Amino acid sequence: MLFKVEMTVRLPATMPAAEADALKKTEREVAQGLMRDGTWRHLWRVAGRYANVSIFDVDSVEQLHQLLSGLPLFPYMDVEVVPLCRHPSSIRDDDR
Amino acid sequence: MLFKVEMTVRLPATMPAAEADALKKTEREVAQGLMRDGTWRHLWRVAGRYANVSIFDVDSVEQLHQLLSGLPLFPYMDVEVVPLCRHPSSIRDDDR
Amino acid sequence: MLFKVEMTVRLPATMPAAEADALKKTEREVAQGLMRDGTWRHLWRVAGRYANVSIFDVDSVEQLHQLLSGLPLFPYMDVEVVPLCRHPSSIRDDDR
Amino acid sequence: MLFKVEMTVRLPATMPAAEADALKKTEREVAQGLMRDGTWRHLWRVAGRYANVSIFDVDSVEQLHQLLSGLPLFPYMDVEVVPLCRHPSSIRDDDR
Amino acid sequence: MLFKVEMTVRLPATMPAAEADALKKTEREVAQGLMRDGTWRHLWRVAGRYANVSIFDVDSVEQLHQLLSGLPLFPYMDVEVVPLCRHPSSIRDDDR
Amino acid sequence: MLFKVEMTVRLPATMPAAEADALKKTEREVAQGLMRDGTWRHLWRVAGRYANVSIFDVDSVEQLHQLLSGLPLFPYMDVEVVPLCRHPSSIRDDDR
Amino acid sequence: MLFKVEMTVRLPATMPAAEADALKKTEREVAQGLMRDGTWRHLWRVAGRYANVSIFDVDSVEQLHQLLSGLPLFPYMDVEVVPLCRHPSSIRDDDR
Amino acid sequence: MLFKVEMTVRLPATMPAAEADALKKTEREVAQGLMRDGTWRHLWRVAGRYANVSIFDVDSVEQLHQLLSGLPLFPYMDVEVVPLCRHPSSIRDDDR
Amino acid sequence: MLFKVEMTVRLPATMPAAEADALKKTEREVAQGLMRDGTWRHLWRVAGRYANVSIFDVDSVEQLHQLLSGLPLFPYMDVEVVPLCRHPSSIRDDDR
Amino acid sequence: MLFKVEMTVRLPATMPAAEADALKKTEREVAQGLMRDGTWRHLWRVAGRYANVSIFDVDSVEQLHQLLSGLPLFPYMDVEVVPLCRHPSSIRDDDR
Repeated sequence: MLFKVEMTVRLPATMPAAEADALKKTEREVAQGLMRDGTWRHLWRVAGRYANVSIFDVDSVEQLHQLLSGLPLFPYMDVEVVPLCRHPSSIRDDDR
Repeated sequence: MLFKVEMTVRLPATMPAAEADALKKTEREVAQGLMRDGTWRHLWRVAGRYANVSIFDVDSVEQLHQLLSGLPLFPYMDVEVVPLCRHPSSIRDDDR
Repeated sequence: MLFKVEMTVRLPATMPAAEADALKKTEREVAQGLMRDGTWRHLWRVAGRYANVSIFDVDSVEQLHQLLSGLPLFPYMDVEVVPLCRHPSSIRDDDR
Repeated sequence: MLFKVEMTVRLPATMPAAEADALKKTEREVAQGLMRDGTWRHLWRVAGRYANVSIFDVDSVEQLHQLLSGLPLFPYMDVEVVPLCRHPSSIRDDDR
Repeated sequence: MLFKVEMTVRLPATMPAAEADALKKTEREVAQGLMRDGTWRHLWRVAGRYANVSIFDVDSVEQLHQLLSGLPLFPYMDVEVVPLCRHPSSIRDDDR
Repeated sequence: MLFKVEMTVRLPATMPAAEADALKKTEREVAQGLMRDGTWRHLWRVAGRYANVSIFDVDSVEQLHQLLSGLPLFPYMDVEVVPLCRHPSSIRDDDR
Repeated sequence: MLFKVEMTVRLPATMPAAEADALKKTEREVAQGLMRDGTWRHLWRVAGRYANVSIFDVDSVEQLHQLLSGLPLFPYMDVEVVPLCRHPSSIRDDDR
Repeated sequence: MLFKVEMTVRLPATMPAAEADALKKTEREVAQGLMRDGTWRHLWRVAGRYANVSIFDVDSVEQLHQLLSGLPLFPYMDVEVVPLCRHPSSIRDDDR
Repeated sequence: MLFKVEMTVRLPATMPAAEADALKKTEREVAQGLMRDGTWRHLWRVAGRYANVSIFDVDSVEQLHQLLSGLPLFPYMDVEVVPLCRHPSSIRDDDR
Repeated sequence: MLFKVEMTVRLPATMPAAEADALKKTEREVAQGLMRDGTWRHLWRVAGRYANVSIFDVDSVEQLHQLLSGLPLFPYMDVEVVPLCRHPSSIRDDDR
């Protein structure tokens, strides 16, 4: 089941650079693990913003929430979730 | 180059059903042609709305505008375009 | 899987009363069918508005979209869908 | 009488983890007490957010305000209240 | 129980003047009946708008919705309902 | 002359409890003085929020601004003012 | 007493030109009468819009509403009213 | 050339009172200088807010920006600028 | 003096194609005349919308309003005007 | 390829003046370098705001994001990007 997830990150100006870097490094590792197992299907940067547009492929809303709320940057994210489904005009097999 | 495009369709209540059906049929044919040649990379239905989330892969903004403004349903669409680029954490080759 | 769905109905002022009544009657029958089979779990009227707050229990986003877009009043509805999941503090078994 | 209540929690970035944990623990105990006595009828997590959708069943607006403003996390919540009533198409006895 | 209700009226430009006048006359009679029995406690015009700010005193949300949805101008109104309760600093006995 | 005033209070998280309590106590005394002399005609709590809906009866906009900007909590308030006037359908003598 | 009033005019596309012209001519006469007696103190066009920014000087909110709701174009206007008062830094005698 | 300028001031809660007072005093002197030379034509307080509505009469947008960005409180202001021009119905010579 | 002007065109669905074509043709001629004399300095299409972003170079706000309100499509446009001035970091002579 | 970019800068009130000045100086040097090589085609100040309207001419969205996210003030900017294309009515060769 597919969900469009848009995340905007706002780190506090007072966070030390080292702490921010460590958070981003762990975030990247977690994200790439989810991409490797196919759960985080697409990930794009929004031009000019510290934000992304993502497509998640999960078995349940529960699983989606566990993944998102477990991200290291989650406490600093503004997250918007939109449920998607197959479009009747689609011809791509994996845009289910 | 990738762009997220979100389209919401609002047909006038006064449009005869036959005209609406003809428009939608042509729209579908045009859309599938663009999907076949790889320009309209992804197309999903937004659950509960007459709207879609799409990803276009084009060579220029000009090409994107020609494609969108040439859609049969364009006069009845509310369209929002967001430019995307490769995310540094992405591991998918085609999410460029 | 649970989704909160909020529907606001806007019938065109020009729709004949008989047509509106017929639509509402069919809508009611379809809605009650979905309530009987447990898919449309909760349905409340928003005070002072021609709108409702609903909770749907479905197996997939696809099923949710089929149900919503098949409602007789769908062409006249503004629909907002929010995916829900079990709250860690919940003690109700069926608020999964 | 039923009210839909949507709560979004925003803890200050400067709150020590121990203080946040203590607050959440007490919040959970208070919430479960209200769920046990039937006042807090439904509680769901909004996917991807530190927020919930709830249904309260109270005797008066006064009682609702006392409950909400007495929650340990209330000072950090953005709360939206919408009064609900029985929908004429409902067939569930307890969706009054 | 008190609710603040704000109503904005938008009559279609195509409604014949006679029909509009008849609707407004009936609306006035219904409103004054509700004011006389104490249900519609306060009614003020918003300066410069075809809109009002009202305070209703009802026994239940159900009763409030019946009153509002039964108003002759209801199909042409945009209605916003906010539940109120006694303020701890109030010294007026009837601002309960 | 009547004005609807809606006030939302946002105390900084860093304000010591004693300072907040002192401010609220003075606010209450000032508010009750204004209620006693009839200037602050109505005061209700908005359910679930640290906010109120008020009706002020003043001789001029100048007087209204002096009262509001003199409130102890004014620096922490978001204030919205809407001028009201007698509604032609009103039957209450004091809803002038 | 001064009020800033912003009016945006939206004439229906179906209104015959002669009717629109007659309305605008009467509007102009009424407006100029109010300007001559000092009630409509300032009137400016907003660049690029069929809208104005005005300052009214009235004895009461009631008078303001009578003037605004009596304008020939009132049924086609979106009106926003903001109460003003003398600024402590002002040195102009008539900006009271 | 006239511009409507609306300024809302938000001083940080942490600014010492003496610093705030000094800033306001200088602001007042600068503002009164501009009013004396006719550049800051009108200045009104918005009732219930730390905000003003102003009309500036300048020779160029450049001059307007220099004046506004040179105000002592500018770093703490939210500023909105709307270009105005003479209204065809105006009869005041100086509302050019 | 420079102004950013954003125009969104919304032709009524009921306008005959011939009338729309004639309007657009005249609009184009007027626009190109203004571009030739340097008043309409820049004109770009917004991708995916029937809208443009423009830069006007005028001697006064009055002139700007005359130009905009004289455009054949003006009655069907939503127009937003933002006054610009030279940026201190600019190195382009004509971005004054 | 052209993009309209609107940047609003919000420096934290706690940033030391020397740090802010150094940031602005570097920002200016970077910006002027991009203007010299033709990438940052236009740059205007928004009157009354610490904000600009810019037009970028880039080969790809990727390049645009690299430029924007590399600006020294980027962490303190709110950035909005709108893709533009040549307008069919344009007569300027370089408004491609």
